[in-house]
Amino acid sequence: MASQTKPVLHGYFRSSCSWRVRIGESCTSIGLPACSLNAFTMLTKFALCTSAFALKGIEYDPVPVNLIQDGGQQLSEQYKKLNPMQQVPSVEIDGITVSQSLAVIQYVDETRPGPRLLPADPKGRAQVRMISDLIASGIQPLQNLHVLQKIGAEKAQWAQHFIERGFQALEPILKQTAGKYCVGDEISMADICLVPQVYNAERFKVDVGQYPTIKRLNRTLLEMEAFKVTHPSCQPDTPADLRS
Amino acid sequence: MASQTKPVLHGYFRSSCSWRVRIGESCTSIGLPACSLNAFTMLTKFALCTSAFALKGIEYDPVPVNLIQDGGQQLSEQYKKLNPMQQVPSVEIDGITVSQSLAVIQYVDETRPGPRLLPADPKGRAQVRMISDLIASGIQPLQNLHVLQKIGAEKAQWAQHFIERGFQALEPILKQTAGKYCVGDEISMADICLVPQVYNAERFKVDVGQYPTIKRLNRTLLEMEAFKVTHPSCQPDTPADLRS
Repeated sequence: MASQTKPVLHGYFRSSCSWRVRIGESCTSIGLPACSLNAFTMLTKFALCTSAFALKGIEYDPVPVNLIQDGGQQLSEQYKKLNPMQQVPSVEIDGITVSQSLAVIQYVDETRPGPRLLPADPKGRAQVRMISDLIASGIQPLQNLHVLQKIGAEKAQWAQHFIERGFQALEPILKQTAGKYCVGDEISMADICLVPQVYNAERFKVDVGQYPTIKRLNRTLLEMEAFKVTHPSCQPDTPADLRS
Repeated sequence: MASQTKPVLHGYFRSSCSWRVRIGESCTSIGLPACSLNAFTMLTKFALCTSAFALKGIEYDPVPVNLIQDGGQQLSEQYKKLNPMQQVPSVEIDGITVSQSLAVIQYVDETRPGPRLLPADPKGRAQVRMISDLIASGIQPLQNLHVLQKIGAEKAQWAQHFIERGFQALEPILKQTAGKYCVGDEISMADICLVPQVYNAERFKVDVGQYPTIKRLNRTLLEMEAFKVTHPSCQPDTPADLRS
């Protein structure tokens, strides 16, 4: 068990963070920039960490990295020293800096008490990691900010294509593994990966209704307090046109 | 500890598999198709599994999935049932099917004896996962067969761009974490991810000399028996123009 110092989470403090976190006094409210499709695409991985922190009840100090202001604060020399990949999130924790959200989630799961984010059974763990990696390696990187910038005008169709392709694979896998949640009846890292990806899918106009298991799991997860009270559509600083 | 049944590895049996495996009678020699840049791009993740199997000394039954013949055997309805993402590898093991190479590697690490592929220390594990994910999520998916097919004529420049971008991030991280290997002096999943990625980088004409830590680690790893005797450049069925 590592020492219980409060981690520092460097991330873009927009909807996905607001959506997932709300964990205590340490997470202060910060003004949001205007809505941007590009910015949204980079949020998925950041949201993974914040939701993991929320589920584990881990308090942290947020340091916002605004992906829009100043041409993208993640591109600054200062941030590059912290995360040479120039992406969010980066977490300073227990004397090390960890970027890559699944590495962060598994680190906190291995060192912090609270609900376990991977099952105890190795087969269940393999399934959780398979689903998480399918999203984090097979879908999310293709709709990343930097990739969409390279794609240019056709970025929305590009993102839609890769999300749909991923969901077409994810749906039959989840049909086999899911119980109440992605793998059986215990919430896990796979669920933490699923919800922000569905959120991005909806933003890219993917018809999630085509994927009944994904749709059902997402709906169930959004009923959980940790996801519900922090949903981006109902935050004090959500722009009026995005409120529900 | 799971039962020690022999896993079935469905994969494209080309150079990266020949390179890494050679683990016993169960892995039979199979003729190779003509060299293809596209096909190479899909091999990285497959190679990850086979090298993990080799390092752990795990015997398995290989089932080749030829990415070139028949318009790509991974696209068949039969293979799609096994791996809806239609990529290699898929591993049938202990009654479950696991696709996504890092999930496979961690499963065999958790259930099989032999040298451990992740450190015992959680901080070391976080660093190994961070490096592995930087490669498996941050680089490899951008040079995947399907992605390059979408990119079309500029696919080589595209792949080169994303590999260089990833290596520019990886180099300073490895400078901090590396000892003899990627994280300290124990070989790990990070090393298993590094070598095939460097191999792909070289195929895409990336100047690996720009990244002295990556270059040094790759050279060290290639001196290991598990990597050396199975290198694609010196196999009986390596085409003459690729031999060294």
